[in-house]
Amino acid sequence: MASESVGVGLVGFGTIGAGVAKVLINNRDVIAQRLGFPLDLVHVADLDLDTDRGVDLGSIRFDSDGAGLITNPDVDIVIELVGGYDFARKLCLDAIAAGKHVVTANKALLAVHGNEIFGAASEKGVDVAFEAAVGGGIPVLRALREGLAANQIQNLYGILNGTTNFVLTEMERTGADFEVVLKQAQELGYAEADPTFDVEGVDAAHKLALLTSMAFGSTLDFKSIPTEGISKLTPLDFESAEANGYRIKLLGIAKRHVAPDGSETLESRVHPTLIPRASLLADVDGAMNAVAIRGDAVGPTLYYGAGAGELPTASAVVGDLMEIAREVHRGASGRVAPLAFPQPTLVPKPLRALGDLVSRFYLRIEALDRPGVLAKITGALGEHGVGIESIHQQGAAPGEDSVPVVVWTHEVREAGVRDALKAIDALAEVTAASNVIRVEEDL
Amino acid sequence: MASESVGVGLVGFGTIGAGVAKVLINNRDVIAQRLGFPLDLVHVADLDLDTDRGVDLGSIRFDSDGAGLITNPDVDIVIELVGGYDFARKLCLDAIAAGKHVVTANKALLAVHGNEIFGAASEKGVDVAFEAAVGGGIPVLRALREGLAANQIQNLYGILNGTTNFVLTEMERTGADFEVVLKQAQELGYAEADPTFDVEGVDAAHKLALLTSMAFGSTLDFKSIPTEGISKLTPLDFESAEANGYRIKLLGIAKRHVAPDGSETLESRVHPTLIPRASLLADVDGAMNAVAIRGDAVGPTLYYGAGAGELPTASAVVGDLMEIAREVHRGASGRVAPLAFPQPTLVPKPLRALGDLVSRFYLRIEALDRPGVLAKITGALGEHGVGIESIHQQGAAPGEDSVPVVVWTHEVREAGVRDALKAIDALAEVTAASNVIRVEEDL
Repeated sequence: MASESVGVGLVGFGTIGAGVAKVLINNRDVIAQRLGFPLDLVHVADLDLDTDRGVDLGSIRFDSDGAGLITNPDVDIVIELVGGYDFARKLCLDAIAAGKHVVTANKALLAVHGNEIFGAASEKGVDVAFEAAVGGGIPVLRALREGLAANQIQNLYGILNGTTNFVLTEMERTGADFEVVLKQAQELGYAEADPTFDVEGVDAAHKLALLTSMAFGSTLDFKSIPTEGISKLTPLDFESAEANGYRIKLLGIAKRHVAPDGSETLESRVHPTLIPRASLLADVDGAMNAVAIRGDAVGPTLYYGAGAGELPTASAVVGDLMEIAREVHRGASGRVAPLAFPQPTLVPKPLRALGDLVSRFYLRIEALDRPGVLAKITGALGEHGVGIESIHQQGAAPGEDSVPVVVWTHEVREAGVRDALKAIDALAEVTAASNVIRVEEDL
Repeated sequence: MASESVGVGLVGFGTIGAGVAKVLINNRDVIAQRLGFPLDLVHVADLDLDTDRGVDLGSIRFDSDGAGLITNPDVDIVIELVGGYDFARKLCLDAIAAGKHVVTANKALLAVHGNEIFGAASEKGVDVAFEAAVGGGIPVLRALREGLAANQIQNLYGILNGTTNFVLTEMERTGADFEVVLKQAQELGYAEADPTFDVEGVDAAHKLALLTSMAFGSTLDFKSIPTEGISKLTPLDFESAEANGYRIKLLGIAKRHVAPDGSETLESRVHPTLIPRASLLADVDGAMNAVAIRGDAVGPTLYYGAGAGELPTASAVVGDLMEIAREVHRGASGRVAPLAFPQPTLVPKPLRALGDLVSRFYLRIEALDRPGVLAKITGALGEHGVGIESIHQQGAAPGEDSVPVVVWTHEVREAGVRDALKAIDALAEVTAASNVIRVEEDL
């Protein structure tokens, strides 16, 4: 059966779907050459049969019959690109039940319903691949699953969302406010009309949930990931970062801790982070993504590329298709576990509470420009054991009475910082909720 | 046979060999958990049975019988870590003939004898894996072979040698001469007593030969790769680079060109290169490696990590072992081609002559500080069609009569530059051979 083809069905013919069709059609020869057999797109399903996607499907079956696609005997692998939760979940589960392998780019779906979907696939003995769900075109899941398979992963830091990285890069470059830059990003197509999922860190948390499971063999636990977005950042934060040798990036951070008794706890969190300018991640600008992964044998590594977009995402989807197709073509199966995660069985591993985090912190406190206010602030910090490395009060602008006070702390438990800020925010002279940015040095 | 182990034999128990043994022994549990079966080091062979390598082999067979290791029925996969050419070549070919899979970190061997070794493996139906041979612990070959498999690769740029990158970083940082920094690197263990292979670019060219074949499906052709090292660089080169917004890196560069008639030519070359400070590769400092790869779908990507060292190299070797072991455990074979290269058959593809390269160039010409010399130099450049972007003559140091003249050219064919320099170096006022550094902007 050396030249027998493997059949692919595509559900969801939007931007990414069109990209996948383009790559499968345009690079058909090189793909067949590398596989030793053709990979054929045989069926495309979408509710919208009219919009021109700029790709000629030729004689490929194109209808709105997703259920029919799943049961199409010519389809060996189903690509789910419909997005969202309910319909996508049902589609994946139905495809798995029909014995079809599944490739998806849907991080939201997997972060929330992954345990169910991977469980069903494992029971049925089919593959679920999702390289495109994390880091777009960057083959970072493959690096974790295969290239670094000999390592205990120690930590990872990811710039996992292009929209927010674009906004942060522009805020730093121009000194403009968040809202102004967000609007530009929307006009340029880097941010959606409703940007909440991106700017509030939810998309990054979806991806971090998948990375955390892969890196540490832990059950998916998206709901437990503390998540903060970038909407509260101000130009002053970037100025202060710059002056202290840092840049601000929205990071997904995951770390593994082993207690003396051998028990494991994990950190998994998404928030704006101050990182040293000299770190490679600090140089990742614009809409690009990157993930830094440290393994016990390999040491620090980093993977960089486009985290979204039609063709980069398609690159990852088709890479997954090729890997599964090779197995299908050999008549093999049972690679589910390695495709899904680096180990066959995921086990629940407790997440460390954010209050237990020990770090330096950057605090921005809005307070009235009155004698004695700084004493009250430093007093509250001291009472809660928060050591101050530097404190700086900006002069009030003409007509303004409230000024920001910037504090860089020594290393301290976050719980102490939170308690101190609770006391500070309760002061009569403090005019707005204080803002906190965590500092990560070790990357 | 769910828990039946796969057996590994290790030939060459030096630094890397000890690292591999450490990873196999220390991470045995996590490796078994990820594979679903144990990966057992069953036999180690080395001529030196006495040196303490800091690893307890326990009851693992340890002798100097490499031939016996190959025929040991408990050994499914042979790791070749003896280095060098002749013995390593024979070892690999003998192992393949005995039906054993081979994992090696030996780029010199593969660059020179790869076509023979991969051919033998393909005929016998066994795997030869060599992730550790390029980029040390960075899973960059896997990225090319699997993650980017859907792409036509357009170009790649690699910092492929840690010794030279360390020396370049220190020359730039300290302003010291090459010989001074090389000596420091030797004292720090970053450079070998005989550093020729590293500093003259040969090691980078070995790795680039492998990357070029993988990226473009071309037969290995190490001998045809134009190779220049870093020993002629001077502090002035770094100053001029800095002043013009560049850094100097020793790069392996490979590009694919397709003529209108569909015929392909490749570029594959190793030399010091001026690259924009803003590029991510420019920020790769010290002994680290990185490879930037651009695919037609994915766009720009980059992979970063330790390019050498005991444990990073072991990480890659054991990653390869795990991939092959999974196949062995399934009773599968025939994955040779995908393991070796992204396509089953490599074809010879012509390399473009360096004279046809079109680029900006940095020229450093040593000339007597006499009236009329600059006119002769600019005249020679003009005669050969080399447009000058800037020219700068340094003032002579007290007691020195010869001064460097630095020229940055417009985009021009290298052949023209070479002809011009031939004429310039023949001038009576020119006191030493001129030096050329190529500029790459598009990375």
